[in-house]
Amino acid sequence: MIRKIYDEELVNGQCYSNLHYLCKNIGQRISGSANAQKAVEWGKKLMESYAFDKVYLQPVMVPHWVRGAKEEGAIIKGDKKISVHIAALGMTVATPKNGLTAPIIEVQSLKELETLGAGVIKGKIVFFNRPFDPRFIETLRAYGTAGDQRFAGPAAAAKYGAAGVIVRSLTETLDFYPHTGATSYTKDGVNIPAAAISTKDANTLSAMLKMKSLPAVKFYFKQNCELLPDAPSFNVVGEMTGSENPNKFITVGGHLDSWDLAEGAHDDGTGVMQSVEALRLLKVMGYKPKNSIRAVFFINEENGDRGGIKYAELADQNKEEHIAAIESDLGGFTPRGFTFEGLSPARIEKISSNWSKLLAPYGSGVLTAGGGGSDIGPLAEKSKGVVLIGYMPDSQRYFDVHHTPNDVFENVNKRELELGAASMASLMYLIDQHGLN
Amino acid sequence: MIRKIYDEELVNGQCYSNLHYLCKNIGQRISGSANAQKAVEWGKKLMESYAFDKVYLQPVMVPHWVRGAKEEGAIIKGDKKISVHIAALGMTVATPKNGLTAPIIEVQSLKELETLGAGVIKGKIVFFNRPFDPRFIETLRAYGTAGDQRFAGPAAAAKYGAAGVIVRSLTETLDFYPHTGATSYTKDGVNIPAAAISTKDANTLSAMLKMKSLPAVKFYFKQNCELLPDAPSFNVVGEMTGSENPNKFITVGGHLDSWDLAEGAHDDGTGVMQSVEALRLLKVMGYKPKNSIRAVFFINEENGDRGGIKYAELADQNKEEHIAAIESDLGGFTPRGFTFEGLSPARIEKISSNWSKLLAPYGSGVLTAGGGGSDIGPLAEKSKGVVLIGYMPDSQRYFDVHHTPNDVFENVNKRELELGAASMASLMYLIDQHGLN
Repeated sequence: MIRKIYDEELVNGQCYSNLHYLCKNIGQRISGSANAQKAVEWGKKLMESYAFDKVYLQPVMVPHWVRGAKEEGAIIKGDKKISVHIAALGMTVATPKNGLTAPIIEVQSLKELETLGAGVIKGKIVFFNRPFDPRFIETLRAYGTAGDQRFAGPAAAAKYGAAGVIVRSLTETLDFYPHTGATSYTKDGVNIPAAAISTKDANTLSAMLKMKSLPAVKFYFKQNCELLPDAPSFNVVGEMTGSENPNKFITVGGHLDSWDLAEGAHDDGTGVMQSVEALRLLKVMGYKPKNSIRAVFFINEENGDRGGIKYAELADQNKEEHIAAIESDLGGFTPRGFTFEGLSPARIEKISSNWSKLLAPYGSGVLTAGGGGSDIGPLAEKSKGVVLIGYMPDSQRYFDVHHTPNDVFENVNKRELELGAASMASLMYLIDQHGLN
Repeated sequence: MIRKIYDEELVNGQCYSNLHYLCKNIGQRISGSANAQKAVEWGKKLMESYAFDKVYLQPVMVPHWVRGAKEEGAIIKGDKKISVHIAALGMTVATPKNGLTAPIIEVQSLKELETLGAGVIKGKIVFFNRPFDPRFIETLRAYGTAGDQRFAGPAAAAKYGAAGVIVRSLTETLDFYPHTGATSYTKDGVNIPAAAISTKDANTLSAMLKMKSLPAVKFYFKQNCELLPDAPSFNVVGEMTGSENPNKFITVGGHLDSWDLAEGAHDDGTGVMQSVEALRLLKVMGYKPKNSIRAVFFINEENGDRGGIKYAELADQNKEEHIAAIESDLGGFTPRGFTFEGLSPARIEKISSNWSKLLAPYGSGVLTAGGGGSDIGPLAEKSKGVVLIGYMPDSQRYFDVHHTPNDVFENVNKRELELGAASMASLMYLIDQHGLN
C-alpha cells in the first residue's frame, strides 16, 4: 500500500501545481486580508473538486494586522548614513509619521536588559543581536534558542522605557533579507515599534557600534503598521467519513495564512497542499478509512493561532474523538520523518520499531520525540488521548526563506514536496489500520 | 570526537568560501582547458596553505574536448520553426559548418532501433525520448535507467546509419536547460553529432511528431565541438602521514574537472571542497591518524576517468595499501549517509550496526550497500581489499542542476555542504580508529 501511495504521488501528484496556484494566483495571505479570504474560497473549491465526503468552513475571528502602504526604511547614522533592510515585526505599531531616530544600544539577551536597567535603556532603541548558534544540527533548535529576542524582546525592552527595538533576523544565513514574525506584548505593557534587520545589516550595525571613533551612532527607522479590529475568517475542512468509527478522527493539516512579504510558499503553502494531497491520495486509491480522516487548512497560525484554537473548541463541542493530528509546518523540504509529542519514550520506541522500517526506504524513517505543531497544539487540552505528530522535513534550508521576501514557489522542489505528501498519507494509513497503541 | 568535528565545521568551516572561489574566480574547468590548469594550481596552493605533511601533483594525460567558440543551436521545422535548447554531448563531433537538417524519428529505447532497422533510420536524426521514471525514490536510479540513451544511444544509432542523435535531457524536471554529459563511441564506429535537448523542448518536439497533420517534421541543429589531442593535467593530492601505518591509506576525494556549461558547483566542486575540508578538520583538531589519510582532487571524471585510473596505477606501483577510499560526487546536498561497494551484506550490516547510531544524530546514519564512485572505482582492481565508499547526500535536487548551465554556486546551501564535509571527516576518523573488519 505504501509503495502504491508513493507511485501514485510521484506519477500523478497534484500538490506542486496546486502550490503554484496558491503562490502565484493568490500570493501572500496574511490573516484578515482580502487574499486570505481568496485563499479560503479557493481552498474550499479545491477540496470540493476532490469530492471528499464533507467539505466545510469553520468561522473564526482573526487579528487583522497590516504593514501599511508606505515603504518601511531604516538608516544607520554614524559618520555616514547607511540604508539597511528592515521589516516590521508582526503585531507591532508604527513609528511616528516621520520615523523614529534615537541612540541605539546593542544587547545579546533579554537578561542583559536587567543589568543595564532603565537608566541606560530609556529613550534608546534596543538592538538584539544574538546570532543563531550554528552548532545545532536541527536549525529549528537554533531558532528556538535565539527566538526569545523576537518573541519577547520588544515587550521586555518597553518595560525599561526603550523607544523602539531592532532584532537580528532569525537565521544563520548572511544576506540582506529581513525576517519578520510575530512578537508578543503584555496587555498592560507599552507597545513600541519593533522591526527585524537583515543579518548582513546587523553585522554592519554591530561593527559600527564597536568603533570607538563613532561614539554617537544613531538609528532611524520608519514603519507604518497598524492593528485593525479583528476580522472574520475560516478554517477549511475536508473529510472522508470512517466506515467503522465515524466519530474518531485522524487529522492532517497546515496553516493557510502566511506572512505578507512574499508568497508563503514553504510557510506554509507546502503544508496545506501536502495535507489535502494526503487525503486526495487515499481517496483516489479507493481506500476506505476505518476512522474519519480530515485535511484542515488552519487560519491565523502566524499571529494568533485562532484557527487552531477554534478547531480544538469545535472538536470538543462536537464530542469528536481525535486519535491523532499531524501537522506540516516546517517547510516542504526533503523528508526525514515525524516527531511525536507527549508520548512516553517507550510508546515512541514501539511506534518506531514497528513503522520506521516501512518508511525508511522513502527517506521518512526517523520517528522520534518532538513537537507536533502550533495549529494542532490546542487539541491536546481539548481532546484527551490525541497524539500530536509533526511532519519533519530536513531543516537545513528553512531559515534561508522563513518569513522573508524569498519564501516563493521557485524555492520549492517538486519531488521533495511530493515525498512529504506521500509520507503523510502513508502515516495516516498506518494509524488508521493499526492505531497508535 | 564526532561532536567536536561537527562543531568545528559548523562554526569555522572553510569549504563554502573555498567553493565560492573555485566557482566564481575559476569557474568551469573541463579537462584539458586553461581553467582546469588554474584549478589544479589553486588546489595545490590551497592544500599547501593547510600545511599537510605532503602535497603533490600526479601528472596524467587527459582528453581535450572543446565545445567550440560558435553558438550551438537547434530548430524544429514543422508548419512553423521553433527554436529549442540543446547542448552537444561531450566527446561528440561537430555538425557540418552550416548545420545538419534531416527528418527526425522518435524512439524510446536502444532496442527500438533494432526493430526499426537501417531502412527506417538511415539518414535520419534519432530522437531518444524515454523520460526519467519518477517512481524511483533515489533519482540516481532513474538516471541509471534512462542513461543508456545518452551513454550508448549515439553509437547505436550510428550503426544503423543515423545522421545525428538528439537525447532527452537526463532529468525529471521540466525546464529549458539542456543537460550535457559524455557519450561513448566504439573505436570502429562512426562518430555522429549528438546533443541533449531540454525536457520542455523534448515534449514539444514529441507532440509535434505525433500530430498527423505534420507528416514531415524536420530537425536542424548546429554544433561546433571538437576532440583535440590529449593534454597534460594532474591529480592534486594532500596527505597526513600515519603514525602507525604510514603505508596504509584512507583516501577521500572528488573530481576537480567539470562540464563546461556552468561552474561545476555540485558536480563536483562540492565534492573536492568537502574532501580537502575533511582532511583540514582532522588536522586543525590536532588528530594524529594511525594510517595515512589523503584528500585527492581527481581530474577528468566527466569524460575519461583518466585521473582515477592514474591514481590506482600509482598506488599499485608504489605498493600502497588502501584500507578505504571515499568519494563525494553526488552533489553537496543534505547528508543521508554512505554506500559501501563490494562488501558482503553481513559486513555492511556489522558496520551499520556499529556506526549508524554515531552518525544518525547528524543526519548521516544510512550505511548501506551501493556504489563507491567513478574516480575510486579503478582502485578496486589495483588495490586488493580496499573498501569503496560513496558519500550519499539526499538525491532529490541533483538532476535539477546536473550537467546544466544551472550548476552554480548559488544552488549550494552552506550548512548542507558543511554537514557533508563533517560526516566525511567523521567516517575517516572511525575507519582510522577501528578499521572496517
